[in-house]
Amino acid sequence: MGQKKNVTFNDIAKYTNFSKTTISRYFNNPDSLTLENQEIIAKALVDLDYKENKVARILANGNTEFIGIILPNLFNNYYSEMLDRILSTYEQFGYKFLIFIGNENEDHERSYIDELLAYKIEGLIILSHTIPSKELAGLQIPIVTIEREDTYVCSVNTDNYMGGCQATCLLASHNCDILIHINSSCDKKSPTYGRVQGFIDICQEKHLPHEVYLKMTGDTYETAQKQLSEIVDNLDQKYAGMKKGIFISNDTQANILLNILIKKHKCFPEDYLIVGFDNSLISREAIIPISTVGQQIDKIAYEAVSLLVEQMNERKKRRPVPLKEPVHKVITPILIRRETTEKE
Amino acid sequence: MGQKKNVTFNDIAKYTNFSKTTISRYFNNPDSLTLENQEIIAKALVDLDYKENKVARILANGNTEFIGIILPNLFNNYYSEMLDRILSTYEQFGYKFLIFIGNENEDHERSYIDELLAYKIEGLIILSHTIPSKELAGLQIPIVTIEREDTYVCSVNTDNYMGGCQATCLLASHNCDILIHINSSCDKKSPTYGRVQGFIDICQEKHLPHEVYLKMTGDTYETAQKQLSEIVDNLDQKYAGMKKGIFISNDTQANILLNILIKKHKCFPEDYLIVGFDNSLISREAIIPISTVGQQIDKIAYEAVSLLVEQMNERKKRRPVPLKEPVHKVITPILIRRETTEKE
Repeated sequence: MGQKKNVTFNDIAKYTNFSKTTISRYFNNPDSLTLENQEIIAKALVDLDYKENKVARILANGNTEFIGIILPNLFNNYYSEMLDRILSTYEQFGYKFLIFIGNENEDHERSYIDELLAYKIEGLIILSHTIPSKELAGLQIPIVTIEREDTYVCSVNTDNYMGGCQATCLLASHNCDILIHINSSCDKKSPTYGRVQGFIDICQEKHLPHEVYLKMTGDTYETAQKQLSEIVDNLDQKYAGMKKGIFISNDTQANILLNILIKKHKCFPEDYLIVGFDNSLISREAIIPISTVGQQIDKIAYEAVSLLVEQMNERKKRRPVPLKEPVHKVITPILIRRETTEKE
Repeated sequence: MGQKKNVTFNDIAKYTNFSKTTISRYFNNPDSLTLENQEIIAKALVDLDYKENKVARILANGNTEFIGIILPNLFNNYYSEMLDRILSTYEQFGYKFLIFIGNENEDHERSYIDELLAYKIEGLIILSHTIPSKELAGLQIPIVTIEREDTYVCSVNTDNYMGGCQATCLLASHNCDILIHINSSCDKKSPTYGRVQGFIDICQEKHLPHEVYLKMTGDTYETAQKQLSEIVDNLDQKYAGMKKGIFISNDTQANILLNILIKKHKCFPEDYLIVGFDNSLISREAIIPISTVGQQIDKIAYEAVSLLVEQMNERKKRRPVPLKEPVHKVITPILIRRETTEKE
């Protein structure tokens, strides 16, 4: 195949007149050699055009430098941006990523975890997992989850509760007559339930009339369109002439809602305000830029990898001290005011 | 750390009363054993709860089952959907993916390729590469590129020329007075230049008045907005009262164009038709669903992996026959008619 023959430790030993053991020590424990000898070997590697074989090195020291990632899909902007940011931590941490698309299917996730373990990953990041966190904890490798139930494992999440409060306070500051929250009927144990709770708490605290719609199933774009059309018809009727402040669970749905309102009323009606969640692309690309609660995806990604690296480093110590309790980091969201809340 | 001790070939040999060599043959060349003996060993693996160590296996047979992927980013819908589809080929081909974000930077791409080679990847898929294809060909490993200049390497691309023809014919069928193509000033050697050429050829063939704007720089959303606003002002003036059919290079820009027109004219003006490219999410999520030329991303991804697997399998033969010429597969795009071309 015209490939160059690989340069071996033997070749390097001959070229430098060191023993093979010395060459091996250079790769696995360089500090055991004098600086001068390190330099001689380093120069030889360049002269011989030596290509490192990481697979061989792994066998020597047991560290694959692999992190496994499982995520539901890459169609959702949130997941693809998160993966982009996680992969970019390579520059800081040097870990390589083996990635699987789990399709939110428990059995797929399990078989991908088996495959990842066979490759001796040093740690696992799993987004919006469907396997219970108790089972994940039983895998006995460093794990960090993002989103979903995280009782038994480390996690990094947006402070969803604070996000819900921020969105609700923004709507409240515009003196809405009625505040509305639209979401799916999410599990109360899931971190994202914080958005619902934040909305309810602020409304109760400020004695604001409010209503919660937890019936979005959101399987497809078309379903969401149909469900939101019905909600709009309902709101137009029930709260006619009243100023309606809507906090909706994500920007994709906020955009659908906005388009329905504009098509129905020929313009964005004066009596509606909208706040979405995620600060995803669509919130900027919508015909009227949408106010939203932005997740700091770069921070979440960085914290997830660094929390994982801490655990992985601990395991490499002679006497590793495992975490007593899973660590749950929360990242503050950032309220972004745009045109859908620019009203008197 | 409370981990179970790994089951070794020794343990399996003892349990089955076979030699270690036999156990090793079971993993690396199972057909050299009788079916009966294969079954005895398979049963022992279950009894002993044997966990495969792929890293050790790689050392035995040299096949990592790794495919490296380098792509510019995951913010762009096209790349994230493509990666989603590529990763999903795991179910068919069984290859695992090591992924780097190259940021369209030649030096980054080079250093990531080095890293991937150190992990003994069996093949490489690179999207929108910035390294010249001649240099990629010199790496001497199976490579498939998607998008960009591909003279010296195998590639899979949308038939951009046909896409340009499809979009132009759709506009022509609506009896537009003037046809306009908006794009960046792309390299004529790049596969995507086919979109421009297809537009020009159809216009000339049908003797249709036309104009080509190749000045989009598209660095950011804001730049694109500004540039398209200027183009709209120009078109409104230059072709006032005439029916204008616009074919624009991608859906993100088509959506910006649509929003500019609606905001300027209070509705989507009767004298404009728009066709985008990509069939990306935004074309459906726009306030008026946008007609577009859809890339068959699932097919491109599948063909890319299968073209790579063919090359990788060839190299494993005793007498591999390298490709005489790089293979360039083109995938037919699909015209999707939506509301921005629903006019008399």
